[in-house]
Amino acid sequence: MTPTDHIQDTAPWDIGADGDTLHEECGIFGVIGARSASSMVALGLHALQHRGQEAVGITSYDGNADAGEFFAHRGIGHVAHVFNSADLFAELPGNMASGHVRYSTTGGSGLRNIQPLFADLAGGGFSIAHNGNLSNAMTLKLDLVQKGSIFQSTSDTEVIIHLVATSRYPTLLDRFVDALRLVEGAYSLICMTKEGMIACRDPLGIRPLVMGRIKDAIVFASETVALDVVGAEFIREVEPGELVQVDHQGIISSHRPFGDFAGRPCIFEHVYFSRPDSVMGGRSVYEARRAIGMELAKESPADADLVVPVPDSGVPAAIGYAQQSGIPFELGIIRSHYVGRTFIQPSDGARHADVKRKHNANRALVEGKRIVLIDDSIVRGTTSLKIVQMMRDAGAAEVHMRIASPPTSHSCFYGVDTPEREKLLAARMDLEAMADYIQADSLAFVSIDGLYRAVGEDVRKPSCPQFCDACFTGDYPTRLTDLIESGREA
Amino acid sequence: MTPTDHIQDTAPWDIGADGDTLHEECGIFGVIGARSASSMVALGLHALQHRGQEAVGITSYDGNADAGEFFAHRGIGHVAHVFNSADLFAELPGNMASGHVRYSTTGGSGLRNIQPLFADLAGGGFSIAHNGNLSNAMTLKLDLVQKGSIFQSTSDTEVIIHLVATSRYPTLLDRFVDALRLVEGAYSLICMTKEGMIACRDPLGIRPLVMGRIKDAIVFASETVALDVVGAEFIREVEPGELVQVDHQGIISSHRPFGDFAGRPCIFEHVYFSRPDSVMGGRSVYEARRAIGMELAKESPADADLVVPVPDSGVPAAIGYAQQSGIPFELGIIRSHYVGRTFIQPSDGARHADVKRKHNANRALVEGKRIVLIDDSIVRGTTSLKIVQMMRDAGAAEVHMRIASPPTSHSCFYGVDTPEREKLLAARMDLEAMADYIQADSLAFVSIDGLYRAVGEDVRKPSCPQFCDACFTGDYPTRLTDLIESGREA
Amino acid sequence: MTPTDHIQDTAPWDIGADGDTLHEECGIFGVIGARSASSMVALGLHALQHRGQEAVGITSYDGNADAGEFFAHRGIGHVAHVFNSADLFAELPGNMASGHVRYSTTGGSGLRNIQPLFADLAGGGFSIAHNGNLSNAMTLKLDLVQKGSIFQSTSDTEVIIHLVATSRYPTLLDRFVDALRLVEGAYSLICMTKEGMIACRDPLGIRPLVMGRIKDAIVFASETVALDVVGAEFIREVEPGELVQVDHQGIISSHRPFGDFAGRPCIFEHVYFSRPDSVMGGRSVYEARRAIGMELAKESPADADLVVPVPDSGVPAAIGYAQQSGIPFELGIIRSHYVGRTFIQPSDGARHADVKRKHNANRALVEGKRIVLIDDSIVRGTTSLKIVQMMRDAGAAEVHMRIASPPTSHSCFYGVDTPEREKLLAARMDLEAMADYIQADSLAFVSIDGLYRAVGEDVRKPSCPQFCDACFTGDYPTRLTDLIESGREA
Amino acid sequence: MTPTDHIQDTAPWDIGADGDTLHEECGIFGVIGARSASSMVALGLHALQHRGQEAVGITSYDGNADAGEFFAHRGIGHVAHVFNSADLFAELPGNMASGHVRYSTTGGSGLRNIQPLFADLAGGGFSIAHNGNLSNAMTLKLDLVQKGSIFQSTSDTEVIIHLVATSRYPTLLDRFVDALRLVEGAYSLICMTKEGMIACRDPLGIRPLVMGRIKDAIVFASETVALDVVGAEFIREVEPGELVQVDHQGIISSHRPFGDFAGRPCIFEHVYFSRPDSVMGGRSVYEARRAIGMELAKESPADADLVVPVPDSGVPAAIGYAQQSGIPFELGIIRSHYVGRTFIQPSDGARHADVKRKHNANRALVEGKRIVLIDDSIVRGTTSLKIVQMMRDAGAAEVHMRIASPPTSHSCFYGVDTPEREKLLAARMDLEAMADYIQADSLAFVSIDGLYRAVGEDVRKPSCPQFCDACFTGDYPTRLTDLIESGREA
Repeated sequence: MTPTDHIQDTAPWDIGADGDTLHEECGIFGVIGARSASSMVALGLHALQHRGQEAVGITSYDGNADAGEFFAHRGIGHVAHVFNSADLFAELPGNMASGHVRYSTTGGSGLRNIQPLFADLAGGGFSIAHNGNLSNAMTLKLDLVQKGSIFQSTSDTEVIIHLVATSRYPTLLDRFVDALRLVEGAYSLICMTKEGMIACRDPLGIRPLVMGRIKDAIVFASETVALDVVGAEFIREVEPGELVQVDHQGIISSHRPFGDFAGRPCIFEHVYFSRPDSVMGGRSVYEARRAIGMELAKESPADADLVVPVPDSGVPAAIGYAQQSGIPFELGIIRSHYVGRTFIQPSDGARHADVKRKHNANRALVEGKRIVLIDDSIVRGTTSLKIVQMMRDAGAAEVHMRIASPPTSHSCFYGVDTPEREKLLAARMDLEAMADYIQADSLAFVSIDGLYRAVGEDVRKPSCPQFCDACFTGDYPTRLTDLIESGREA
Repeated sequence: MTPTDHIQDTAPWDIGADGDTLHEECGIFGVIGARSASSMVALGLHALQHRGQEAVGITSYDGNADAGEFFAHRGIGHVAHVFNSADLFAELPGNMASGHVRYSTTGGSGLRNIQPLFADLAGGGFSIAHNGNLSNAMTLKLDLVQKGSIFQSTSDTEVIIHLVATSRYPTLLDRFVDALRLVEGAYSLICMTKEGMIACRDPLGIRPLVMGRIKDAIVFASETVALDVVGAEFIREVEPGELVQVDHQGIISSHRPFGDFAGRPCIFEHVYFSRPDSVMGGRSVYEARRAIGMELAKESPADADLVVPVPDSGVPAAIGYAQQSGIPFELGIIRSHYVGRTFIQPSDGARHADVKRKHNANRALVEGKRIVLIDDSIVRGTTSLKIVQMMRDAGAAEVHMRIASPPTSHSCFYGVDTPEREKLLAARMDLEAMADYIQADSLAFVSIDGLYRAVGEDVRKPSCPQFCDACFTGDYPTRLTDLIESGREA
Repeated sequence: MTPTDHIQDTAPWDIGADGDTLHEECGIFGVIGARSASSMVALGLHALQHRGQEAVGITSYDGNADAGEFFAHRGIGHVAHVFNSADLFAELPGNMASGHVRYSTTGGSGLRNIQPLFADLAGGGFSIAHNGNLSNAMTLKLDLVQKGSIFQSTSDTEVIIHLVATSRYPTLLDRFVDALRLVEGAYSLICMTKEGMIACRDPLGIRPLVMGRIKDAIVFASETVALDVVGAEFIREVEPGELVQVDHQGIISSHRPFGDFAGRPCIFEHVYFSRPDSVMGGRSVYEARRAIGMELAKESPADADLVVPVPDSGVPAAIGYAQQSGIPFELGIIRSHYVGRTFIQPSDGARHADVKRKHNANRALVEGKRIVLIDDSIVRGTTSLKIVQMMRDAGAAEVHMRIASPPTSHSCFYGVDTPEREKLLAARMDLEAMADYIQADSLAFVSIDGLYRAVGEDVRKPSCPQFCDACFTGDYPTRLTDLIESGREA
Repeated sequence: MTPTDHIQDTAPWDIGADGDTLHEECGIFGVIGARSASSMVALGLHALQHRGQEAVGITSYDGNADAGEFFAHRGIGHVAHVFNSADLFAELPGNMASGHVRYSTTGGSGLRNIQPLFADLAGGGFSIAHNGNLSNAMTLKLDLVQKGSIFQSTSDTEVIIHLVATSRYPTLLDRFVDALRLVEGAYSLICMTKEGMIACRDPLGIRPLVMGRIKDAIVFASETVALDVVGAEFIREVEPGELVQVDHQGIISSHRPFGDFAGRPCIFEHVYFSRPDSVMGGRSVYEARRAIGMELAKESPADADLVVPVPDSGVPAAIGYAQQSGIPFELGIIRSHYVGRTFIQPSDGARHADVKRKHNANRALVEGKRIVLIDDSIVRGTTSLKIVQMMRDAGAAEVHMRIASPPTSHSCFYGVDTPEREKLLAARMDLEAMADYIQADSLAFVSIDGLYRAVGEDVRKPSCPQFCDACFTGDYPTRLTDLIESGREA
């Protein structure tokens, strides 16, 4: 019943955060009813690699509702690095498997925090993969430890397992629902028990989760691109507050343990996190981003010669801006495909060599030109400053920065790795000061309503916003218990 | 005098060739006169990573013309993987260093073949990094072995070292020139002796080599992008047939041991190998590629809704095609940034999952549209077939393939990893058969003269072509001694 | 509060059991009050390496009763292999540390089972290192899991931690005693809390534990040899049923939570497990073994030319046998110092090459001679058979086997890795059949009373034996709850 | 023709020299005519592990005199560590294989120096494994490099390969003999060419080499123990100055290219290097050592209670001393089986902890006794000092040191790792000063004639000594060209 767990602790080579981007903390993928389920999970996670590059784990179950065994393999690094041998999949047998890629937010980067987490409960093995973040995990953990629970990880997700373990309800499903009633925050979960797979989303559906089918197998994934890559057909999204159960016979049942809610999915998924080839909430992510660029061009035109994206995340919005404005789209910045960690010291003369390792100005193109630079967002502002400087060093006559999201002025507590509020440029400065800080000739962000229009809404409804947009508005859709308990402010 | 050599044999994770792209076999970088020269070399090689992903080596020299010591570190994998610790640079001290990234052509992928190669000669240590391929290496090697030379690698480059070692001339420079007189083919070389650095290019200048300056240091690199990234200023190209010597005082001397030649640099560097932000032969690579796209649009227009690049190599030509034709440029294919080796087996239902791991159709955009698909070249044709199919699976109404180079009909013997001629699609079929094979609604290649125009020439001069274009024309600029000796045909 | 845990999973190279020896499952060592405590622990564990070669772990505590942090490092392999860098000790700071070497009995060989185990309890961190085996662990675990405890290892030791975690008593010490009241079997424990170190022994004192002093530091160890090697002075044994607490000021307090008991320490420690240079129960282990040899010579003389030990464990008894009998002691078997795992296949012609890799006959000496062969014990008998055969192949005229312990006829449930009873040669055969099986000319074991005499007793008291000798007599000193629950028989 | 070479660079764990023992630099083993020859070589090298613990390599040849391929695997560490997978032998196919264990003397410990060395010569592949040391290697190397030879290792052995490569003789055998005529010093060699195996010994036969048979295969090894372990039958020694050739049909031919010589094999093999279960020059090594102990007892009796060996090398002489003197033989020092490298720092209070990790006093035995301590030799004297001190710390009343060899007063230039002469205790002091230095109550060495008697000679013949005993007498049997050229003194 205990999973045979092989831990691989390789030096990571490409976690490579520069501290000035927002990071989704994870992607999850599960399948039930497929031969060599674990290898499909690896392929699906590979397609979700952009959601978490630090570590990866896969757990499989070989058996049926009566008897079977769990297996696990996890390691630090990319999917293709950790699952670098066909033999590994032979050690992850069974028709049900789920996996997780993570960028650490809550909990350090230790091996013990690599998901899926697993526990041998009284009712049998229980595996859980979590995308999101609980906003009352610390408070619940303190209480559980007082009562005798022993935590093996520092992950907020383990709280759910202990709540399930100590629940007094008779069935594992009831105990799971009992546990979820106690947690607050964002969670899309894929769980496995010997009875089958359970996928669910928090009442607001803050983090995404979709459902697909390939032959007789049912697949769950953070984004539709993972369905595409494994060859599965999209069925529908798991709804906010919905719990979908699939057993070994492929029978699907839907539960709504929290009643009906109007969801508030994260709008930043459209701006940055999701892959452009995913469809989210019925809307193509690529087209939403291009539409943001068009809104930007309408709201904040610029008199310029070239539209230049900050690659790769700024490309769709730049295409939209160029199409709307008629200014030619050109690759004024070239992105290296080979970005590793930062042990290589820049030489004395190399100004901003760390940025140059990733991005290099296309000097022959930029020289003497007035350019509109399109990026997805500004976090601390340090990267924008370097990129604007790089354009000037390459001879750009004017640099007009246009940002495909509103100012990021508040931290996220729902599973996105944002700095503390006081480090966010938009929390510290007004627009003019920001333009000055990054040394751009002009700076503009898309408006919050422009953003809502681009993702298909007429307007943001202030009384009951259609999305979680707290990072732009400070309007958090749940209590933030741990924050309040700690005496800090959002 | 012997370099302290640390060999690191890590499992490579991303050599990842699918056998249907052309590979440059190497990039080289050297610097003399800089503090922490080896870390600058690593940064420069990182910028040249696209020229060789299999292995990397750096050799440094700590000392002066009278006395000093060589050091080396090499390993399998990317620069950022092999040089993954700041400590390594402490083990590569000195003001002179050079390095090499390789994709193996001649010689297997064994560790012994990782360059720079080094030998303790009678006159002192001698290090050599080579981009290119000698076309008479086997013939020379047989002769050397007969006379008692013992080869430690299977690389053609080692032939040069043994020719230097056994030359009867008194000085190391004379012996080096003596050796070069005996070899034929393509070579850009960066060598180190205790006297300083020697950079040279074969008489036709087939492979590129540029020279730059940063403060008091002189830098040599395969492409200008490496100068940009380390912060060096471009001085000029090393000329075809030129040998440039730099001593520890920074004194530069130029030699032309083979007399004056009109060079014939490789035209494929402009089409595919070089980074778009490099300048080659005075021409921006990005602009040459965009100009190829414009030529293609003029020569081979298509009635379509979207221009879609095969990312990333097809992007500049697609922008040119879109600008010339007025058809919108859109990202109809999304490229994953996380492409590893192929141990992850595709699931049963996943058609062409190996391609999908790298490229995924942007279905929402493509569906129902007539598209012009732009790629840089066709080698075996297998990738083109899969990409066209992916577009059709995503609902494209028509797929018109346009290729930003002439048909690749001949093998390269100058350092590019081409398949044998009989495996090249353009050597096996005419245009119509090729279109049929890849299942495109139409197929066109840019003309050889269109290509020459795009890189800035009025026309190709058939009697003395300005470039080596043998892969398109079969017009090889040197003897192919090994090939002739082996009884095979080009 | 959470230990920074570095897990190292190296392929073990020398676990190398042939399945025909008895293995002590562990050695433990702890120190409080010493600078660089962790490096003293490593040295102490190195001296206890014979008690467990599979894995090793060290946990340290840096701080005092008010505040501090726990650190841990563990790995598979020998102490000198896992702790192979001075840097590791810098990562294990503090004046208190404890460690564990193990040969796995209960619980597989997974990394999660490497001790010391650690948990963050409500009262603070708690670390535990255990030598012995609980005979009711499975029964207790089932109950704990029902109530919501989640086990992370398969080790019986973790039961103690969960019992502590869920105890309702107010102080950590009370909760620890509460936990010990529930367990049965053999345990010598070294625990750490932020208040200090706790060392204790089960009421019968089945496994050994001694106490020493070096300067201001107090040391606990499984055997006195570890005190010698770290330079500590022996104080006394921890008594059966005693719990010794040492705080950060060096104040020692002794508790007897179970009342007074006459202990029954394991007699096999004298026969085989302990190092000959240890003193156990006031008696030199070397001298006890030599005395066993003398008893053997009196009880079972042989007409022979040479006394030959099976090295190294048979040497002291062979010296005693030779001294008593007057037959010369000679090295008729040479032991290799370099015994690794068994991947090297024997060649076709090599008979018993696996044994020969460890032991080789000294043919020149043995040829034509009548020899008395002395070994410590017979388990399955397969090794004895091979060794006798090796002597005959080398030309021995007669081989008389003498065993320095009574017949091993019962399994151990107190932390020694014995095969199931039906695999023990002495459980399957009488003396004559055994002699026949191993093909010796004669075979004799020391009598149980001879053994008691050799360890310093006049006679074994059948009503209340002075030692645990269950493996020879079947007289188990505790209930065997798990065995009874499972319906099997001792 | 080029061997597929897999280099494994693992951190060695047990090279563990304390600088105060003499080290044989290597053991060699070869077999021709056996299935899975490489695995027999591994087994044979395992039996020779005491001759070199730093690194190991095996080369195999799969083919016949007409065609075939060489394969190699080598690594740092013990045989059982480097050859730790059965798969490795599948990568070393063929009926002929040879191998080498080394302790580095000449040449650093780099991977390139691990033998067998291999080269692709004009006549085909050539592999060489060498035990011994050439005393004119530097002189020859300088000359070869002048003529254009490129050395890849710093090993003296590579000189032989280059001499073969550049010889003008027609056949490989003639070129090999031509090469050997130029070298001076000690060499036992096992070479492989596609024609078969060549084993030879220098004209004085300084290093050992024996020949055996197993079924149809011929085996060569440094010592007979390796024949025993693989199950081969001893045929005879390869004679001093003899070259034995074995082809793929098993035909053996013997050559004496240097004429007839009276050999002078190394006498230290009998004292220390060889395993006691080997037979060398027709004499059991164990019996020679016991006889040395008897000579010592006659020459230098002591009034004492116990004879205590320094384990393990002192044991046979101690047995002899005890038998001759009638003083009981006892294990007063216990040796740990688990001696690793020295990263574990001794604690403050631990006096001589580095020695204690290996050896611990058996205090209960030694206390109050007068002991005769027997060791094989004294090099620098530092170990003897610590051991004597350890005996005193354990309460010994008197310590009488007896050494089973004459004073080691001169360095070895024939393949034994001795310190420079000025560091040898016996070169710096007379007997009394030595006794004083090591703080023994008395000190005695066996006489040179006593040693000769123990190995079976009546007396040492001063005009033509039967052995090389230069380390005791300074009577070097060859020129020492490199030493002379370097201006130093023996």
